[in-house]
Amino acid sequence: MLHTPPHLLVFDIFGTVVDWHGSIVRELHALHPDVDADAFALAWRAGYQPAMEAVRSGGRGFVKLDLLHREILDGLLPRFGLTHLDEAARAGLNRVWHRLAAWPDSVAGLARLKSRFTIATLSNGNIGLLTDMAKHAGLPWDCVLSAEVFRAYKPDPRTYLGVAEVFDLAPAEVMLVAAHHDDLAAARACGLLTAYIERPLEFGTARPKDVSPDPANSLHARDLLHLADLLGC
Amino acid sequence: MLHTPPHLLVFDIFGTVVDWHGSIVRELHALHPDVDADAFALAWRAGYQPAMEAVRSGGRGFVKLDLLHREILDGLLPRFGLTHLDEAARAGLNRVWHRLAAWPDSVAGLARLKSRFTIATLSNGNIGLLTDMAKHAGLPWDCVLSAEVFRAYKPDPRTYLGVAEVFDLAPAEVMLVAAHHDDLAAARACGLLTAYIERPLEFGTARPKDVSPDPANSLHARDLLHLADLLGC
Repeated sequence: MLHTPPHLLVFDIFGTVVDWHGSIVRELHALHPDVDADAFALAWRAGYQPAMEAVRSGGRGFVKLDLLHREILDGLLPRFGLTHLDEAARAGLNRVWHRLAAWPDSVAGLARLKSRFTIATLSNGNIGLLTDMAKHAGLPWDCVLSAEVFRAYKPDPRTYLGVAEVFDLAPAEVMLVAAHHDDLAAARACGLLTAYIERPLEFGTARPKDVSPDPANSLHARDLLHLADLLGC
Repeated sequence: MLHTPPHLLVFDIFGTVVDWHGSIVRELHALHPDVDADAFALAWRAGYQPAMEAVRSGGRGFVKLDLLHREILDGLLPRFGLTHLDEAARAGLNRVWHRLAAWPDSVAGLARLKSRFTIATLSNGNIGLLTDMAKHAGLPWDCVLSAEVFRAYKPDPRTYLGVAEVFDLAPAEVMLVAAHHDDLAAARACGLLTAYIERPLEFGTARPKDVSPDPANSLHARDLLHLADLLGC
């Protein structure tokens, strides 16, 4: 499948390396046990693509994902009976995205991959968010790269081509690792190698995700430990 | 001296965390024993500020430091009798900046500082250079930030203010750690805390540097282990 191995592995984060749904459900349940935490997490995430679309379409200048998350949160609070939350409570809750828990295989898988490759984030999360998350979850990145560096949100080609340019590599020397076929397809269109990671529980145990392979991907792995196996680490 | 500790420590790299002079002397001596490696290292570094000044003055768009290092190198080769070096040899030698050795205290000092603070680079080196260096020397950064992210070279205020903005901090919550009083003075003018690190042998053992304190700095430390002591890590 893979004739020439990559020099650099870049990772999607939300859903691929960390469990946003489970982390938000746990935190919300602890803070507000009467709220439907599952529906809350799904609604928050559902606002993500539309919020970025305003930036992608050029209708809005680039802003950090922290701000988009906060705007979506403020919009959700009435629906979940949480309009009484004050500024400090809202700001604190918004930072749950900085504290997302890693999937059980992520830290060990990344450590193995790091022994042979340079490993970096390539996420729509902002740099501060990704740095806090790495420190909190023990993710051993060589480098934190973000949409914020390129002032463009994935799947804008400037993100995939930008990461290759930062490292003076040809696109085919870079592999994007992600749990989302649309992200991988956009990277492939820019010439990157792609590895799909199955994350069947990304949307919670009640809602298993279709993790069927797409033969267009360079690799298909159950998790990051399996990816390390496939890459000979 | 320090009433309120910082949240984030950002580090100058060349001379502060790694020994550019000694590293270049060693590598050049191994490759070309007849060349005056000390003079070569000093001449290469002497081209650094003038090359960046063309970008700072607006006369040239932002380019990565790798390219500036290469242009300076190409200009030096005749003077040192090395014009016979081919493209691959020049490119390989230019990457010595990606392989600079840490000062003996750097890895242990950073590990202690990382236990209490977020630690990041804030260097004129480009992201790829800094990432390769960290991997090579074992520097445990939480985040690799660079002039390249801000498209401006230190001491441009956009670098010091940019790093605070990336982490949603006030400038006074950020401390720049550097072995150069001019870098620290520029950061201080932007409101950052500053820590001076003595690196008396930055320019080689034959040329000890004046490491007198400047009382304007928030802290003055012999090395990064001493800085960890001063910050209670």
